[in-house]
Amino acid sequence: MTGAFITLEGGDGSGKSTQSALLSEWLTNRGDTVLFTREPGGTELGVEIRRLVLHAGHVAPRAEALLYAADRAHHVETVVRPALERGTIVIQDRFVDSSVAYQGAGRVLDPQEIASLSAWATGGLRPSLTILLDLDPRVGRERMNIGRGSYDRLESEQLDFHDRVRAAYLGLAEAEPERFLVLDAARPPEELAHRIRERLAGILP
Amino acid sequence: MTGAFITLEGGDGSGKSTQSALLSEWLTNRGDTVLFTREPGGTELGVEIRRLVLHAGHVAPRAEALLYAADRAHHVETVVRPALERGTIVIQDRFVDSSVAYQGAGRVLDPQEIASLSAWATGGLRPSLTILLDLDPRVGRERMNIGRGSYDRLESEQLDFHDRVRAAYLGLAEAEPERFLVLDAARPPEELAHRIRERLAGILP
Repeated sequence: MTGAFITLEGGDGSGKSTQSALLSEWLTNRGDTVLFTREPGGTELGVEIRRLVLHAGHVAPRAEALLYAADRAHHVETVVRPALERGTIVIQDRFVDSSVAYQGAGRVLDPQEIASLSAWATGGLRPSLTILLDLDPRVGRERMNIGRGSYDRLESEQLDFHDRVRAAYLGLAEAEPERFLVLDAARPPEELAHRIRERLAGILP
Repeated sequence: MTGAFITLEGGDGSGKSTQSALLSEWLTNRGDTVLFTREPGGTELGVEIRRLVLHAGHVAPRAEALLYAADRAHHVETVVRPALERGTIVIQDRFVDSSVAYQGAGRVLDPQEIASLSAWATGGLRPSLTILLDLDPRVGRERMNIGRGSYDRLESEQLDFHDRVRAAYLGLAEAEPERFLVLDAARPPEELAHRIRERLAGILP
């Protein structure tokens, strides 16, 4: 493979879309070919799978994990790998780390098993770089204009969940420092974009 | 669990439907509660997944295996396990051994990996008894009124494939003789039914 595979991770409101757009623009201006994509839903089959999971009523937890893994397998084989083989820089909003962090926080399935499932689904494809936009979930919620001010019980439970997601992400980053760039997502977007460009210097083809 | 989980395996035309019907009838007459089910498609979600796989155009091989595993996970958790816990005898047309034998014969994915995937999907559920209706694929085809007489090249390739499926099934049975009952499916249906009832004596609750 001659391209580069860059994934963005972090909670809702952490600025993944903004940083993806700034990075795509910078790379394109540099003369690179860039593909921006996401999971779930990066293929027609993925859109159908997502529709199934969301509208099928109760779905057994392992079935749901397998359906998302199927979306990932198809997306990697038909979109990501072919692009990388053509020398494209692929920027992807959420990948394996999302599945592991969110499943781990949900405490239904073993996150290590989810990681193994994703590794099989992708044939072991690993990102060249994973940018973790780390943010207090309370700040992320305020940015998204929800839950401002006081929290009711349900919202507090949701915050506990998102605190666990955040901790899981930080644990993954600590275990693989060579793959992760952890950024304080509360900093200004241009400063974050600069840090990303610096780190990419040693990675881009 | 207080019920019993009986699976039927074998190629097309080997008589799985006939033996399932004879066994259900015998058990019901004995006073047992029986559930007959199948994969893929034993749940509403499964029907949707099957439709997706068949009509979505090209589906990456790992994605296809994961979709069938999702169907299995949902079917086991929402249909098979609850029935077994109620003390029902579940008779199922095809289960994990089908996936392993057919994928192994197709030579695209590693059959051991398919077995691991199914084991995870089902939470390790294993049949109390697996009845393998072993038959020369040429005889199976004749029974189904296809390919009678001479074979063209495509049909010969299909026969090679079904010979490999048969060999894979026999390999699985050899590895787990305590779980499998291997029968010569060319014998008369009533004789086969009798052999199945004999073997079940030591298994039924």
